[in-house]
Amino acid sequence: MCGASVRTPPGSPPRALVRECVGDQLDRDPEVPVPDSTARAEIGVTGLAVMGSNLARNFASKGFVTAVHNRTSSKTDALIAEHGSDGDFVPSNTPEEFVASLAVPRKIIIMVKAGGPTDAVIDELSELLEPGDILIDGGNSLFQDTIRREKAAREKGIHFVGCGISGGEEGALKGPSIMPGGSKEAYGSLGPILEKISAHVDGAPCCTHIGTDGAGHFVKMVHNGIEYADMQLIAEAYDLLRRGAGLEPAEIAEVFADWNAGDLDSFLIEITAEVLKQVDAKTGKPFVDVVVDAAGMKGTGTWTVQTALTLGVPVTGIAESVFARGLSSATAQRAAAKDLPGPSGQLELDDRAAFIEDVRLALYASKIVAYAQGFDEIVAGAAEFDWDIDRGAVAKIWRGGCIIRARFLNRITEAYAEDPTLASLLFAPFFTEVVSAGQDSWRRVVSRAALAGIPTPGFASSLSYYDGLRSERLPAALIQGQRDFFGAHTYKRVDTEGTFHTLWSGDRTEIQEDGQTAGVNAPVESGH
Amino acid sequence: MCGASVRTPPGSPPRALVRECVGDQLDRDPEVPVPDSTARAEIGVTGLAVMGSNLARNFASKGFVTAVHNRTSSKTDALIAEHGSDGDFVPSNTPEEFVASLAVPRKIIIMVKAGGPTDAVIDELSELLEPGDILIDGGNSLFQDTIRREKAAREKGIHFVGCGISGGEEGALKGPSIMPGGSKEAYGSLGPILEKISAHVDGAPCCTHIGTDGAGHFVKMVHNGIEYADMQLIAEAYDLLRRGAGLEPAEIAEVFADWNAGDLDSFLIEITAEVLKQVDAKTGKPFVDVVVDAAGMKGTGTWTVQTALTLGVPVTGIAESVFARGLSSATAQRAAAKDLPGPSGQLELDDRAAFIEDVRLALYASKIVAYAQGFDEIVAGAAEFDWDIDRGAVAKIWRGGCIIRARFLNRITEAYAEDPTLASLLFAPFFTEVVSAGQDSWRRVVSRAALAGIPTPGFASSLSYYDGLRSERLPAALIQGQRDFFGAHTYKRVDTEGTFHTLWSGDRTEIQEDGQTAGVNAPVESGH
Repeated sequence: MCGASVRTPPGSPPRALVRECVGDQLDRDPEVPVPDSTARAEIGVTGLAVMGSNLARNFASKGFVTAVHNRTSSKTDALIAEHGSDGDFVPSNTPEEFVASLAVPRKIIIMVKAGGPTDAVIDELSELLEPGDILIDGGNSLFQDTIRREKAAREKGIHFVGCGISGGEEGALKGPSIMPGGSKEAYGSLGPILEKISAHVDGAPCCTHIGTDGAGHFVKMVHNGIEYADMQLIAEAYDLLRRGAGLEPAEIAEVFADWNAGDLDSFLIEITAEVLKQVDAKTGKPFVDVVVDAAGMKGTGTWTVQTALTLGVPVTGIAESVFARGLSSATAQRAAAKDLPGPSGQLELDDRAAFIEDVRLALYASKIVAYAQGFDEIVAGAAEFDWDIDRGAVAKIWRGGCIIRARFLNRITEAYAEDPTLASLLFAPFFTEVVSAGQDSWRRVVSRAALAGIPTPGFASSLSYYDGLRSERLPAALIQGQRDFFGAHTYKRVDTEGTFHTLWSGDRTEIQEDGQTAGVNAPVESGH
Repeated sequence: MCGASVRTPPGSPPRALVRECVGDQLDRDPEVPVPDSTARAEIGVTGLAVMGSNLARNFASKGFVTAVHNRTSSKTDALIAEHGSDGDFVPSNTPEEFVASLAVPRKIIIMVKAGGPTDAVIDELSELLEPGDILIDGGNSLFQDTIRREKAAREKGIHFVGCGISGGEEGALKGPSIMPGGSKEAYGSLGPILEKISAHVDGAPCCTHIGTDGAGHFVKMVHNGIEYADMQLIAEAYDLLRRGAGLEPAEIAEVFADWNAGDLDSFLIEITAEVLKQVDAKTGKPFVDVVVDAAGMKGTGTWTVQTALTLGVPVTGIAESVFARGLSSATAQRAAAKDLPGPSGQLELDDRAAFIEDVRLALYASKIVAYAQGFDEIVAGAAEFDWDIDRGAVAKIWRGGCIIRARFLNRITEAYAEDPTLASLLFAPFFTEVVSAGQDSWRRVVSRAALAGIPTPGFASSLSYYDGLRSERLPAALIQGQRDFFGAHTYKRVDTEGTFHTLWSGDRTEIQEDGQTAGVNAPVESGH
């Protein structure tokens, strides 16, 4: 192929053709720039789709000499042609040129698809780097992949930094929230650059060293899980106001805009108001009514819940959010379900304003539960993977740049500053008070929705979690009794140490088992 | 060590000592039985902990010549000593003897711990088997492991059958529910033996060929997930009657015994009544009050939810059940949470009998949702892994032997017999009618529990699922709008084909994207 392309077929621009064969060093077109011998670039970005391109522009516009590279050079060309004036770019057409253009220790951010493509780029670049160089994965990689890659890179003396970046296209360009993992040493030289291009809130950068190896991607994953919950709770609030209270989308947009001026002030509430006030140009209908009600997803919410299950952390709000998207997309089932009997969803309201306030407080309380669960997952992950994660610092860098940015996060930062070992966000006095003040509303909303037939998986699940957590006694004792009955799984007693089993099939006396006996008798059917 | 033991220290029975050195063929004690040269055993069991031992006794008592083997021969000796009269056992001390004692094609059931121990036994036995032999894994293996092992065995010409076995110790002995996967050919000779030792209901065996390779373990995994949901729903019903209605455990035992005479007739309801009527001998208190209320678990529920997440199937009832166990075991958090404000859980009831009936109907409806979700996961798994699974046949073999056995399963069998392609169990006329008749009660229970502060994660989540499924429009449309706003994730329109994006940061007009353009523009931050 490469040989064919340099034969310059008639009508084809020769330079573009040569650029398709960038691996072929011998046939280099003399017009293609040679590597910069002064190697002056301070940061490099490879993978120039929208996120990578915007991130590169962000670096350049903040004064960093920015090396840029893409597998197909058309994107590199486009970036330089359209945005070259943003700052000092050093474009390259081959990985070799790209690496050669960077000052040591080299700092390269990989912005390609997670999974195989990321591995391929890492493999290719690793061959070209020297010990001490820093390779950064800015995609949404699974944190276990990051742990594996960091270990492999470390063996070659290369610093590998799995780096969560949130904020979408606009965040990448104007200042995202950045969650780098990897070694402290790498953060020492990389951190100042990332902090400079990150969002800033009250003068503080939305970037901090999260922890070693996969900690950054882990925290980014949990961020996305919380984002799912946030969005689902907002959707439920909308549904209650629409179906339950009979408000039109434009009216609900005003409610959300109003909420955004108070405690719920956040990016997601703000854009919800924008989406709800949008009118479809074609039909004149509310935009939200012409959109197919099947929510998509791309994996990180699923990872958050799967990981929480492995860690044994109940993240019910996030799980219900992921499942709600799945249910919405079960098109065939939903079509067949339209005849299932049930109430219409309409509420009989004496006081619409009071109901709107109830929904606001239910949303606020449920949101606190979702964040509490997310931070619990971070604590469990840190314990499992030996990371030292400062939850207050995490909340602080989520205040700006990212999708879940919110005023609320200042309160979380304060809560963890006051008590860094807080066992649940719900125990921080501020949040205990918010939930206390709002719980009557929360209960009324869940109660009315159940009666009226409006699904509130997020609100109801969060309330059940709250009531479960504060229960002095849970019916889990009965479950232990059942498990002991059918599987001899044993139980503990409230009044004495040890492990016990009742001879359910015998005379129903209780026997105490020592660890060894219990082990020997443990049935192979161990799944209960 | 082995050499030492044949030196027969004074006071030690020489035969027992030799049995500790079964790997040493040369030093065999002449008293140890030599392999049966006629190789007459029809089935073999290796791994003689309680489940394996009981399964072997079941085979022998049904007239099968049963080869038995255990890594340490003390268990083999114990089985023969205590239960040798159950039937015709052929004990062996080494894998070689064990394999040699079996008639070809050999059929060996492995009853050891899932994971590494199972792989070790498979590796050891595979070396000794011949093409056409059948190796059966009767443990709770992860179905992906079973797929892998079946493939590896097939390459050696050996049939590998991952076989779910439910029913605990008693089921293994008296008749379990058996879910074998693997090839049809293997089932041809193995099936009749398994069917004979399985539970029987109305004369039909609780054993059927589920599907190829990992299908049996997959279905067993979902069975266990449903079991988690069943147990959680029962626990919630108990909690509502205890805390809400103020009934004592002995009174609730009567309620459950009463329920067990009706539609809810099932093993789990039956044993719940038994557990609740149990009185602790030491304290005179109800048994359920002296048991620590922290529910244990051993993995298959977690797998069920993790797999459902990968498959995109909302199994909210199972997920809430797994999380409820996790929450119950979060001892430190629960201790700190006891001061969180909220109502006491006590209900003001005008009519206690009516409330009890409401709880019964709520339990029944929630249970139907849990089964519907579980069968949805089976359908999704079958599609993903290319299995031909007859849901009616699965329901039929769950009628007896297993933990979730229930009268109810006859109705499921009938529903799938009537419509094998049923898109949800909820659409079967019988179940639609049950939910229709019970839903006012269900809604009242969830509503009252929310107001009173009793956690009902299972009941509430199932109700939200039901209301979500039947919703003509879901607020997922708003979520799609949010996703398009912050991540250009695009959306579909209800009135026309194609994929669309609104220029939210621009003039807010809508553009249509072709697949290619959408792909190119897809941001690397793809987790939303």
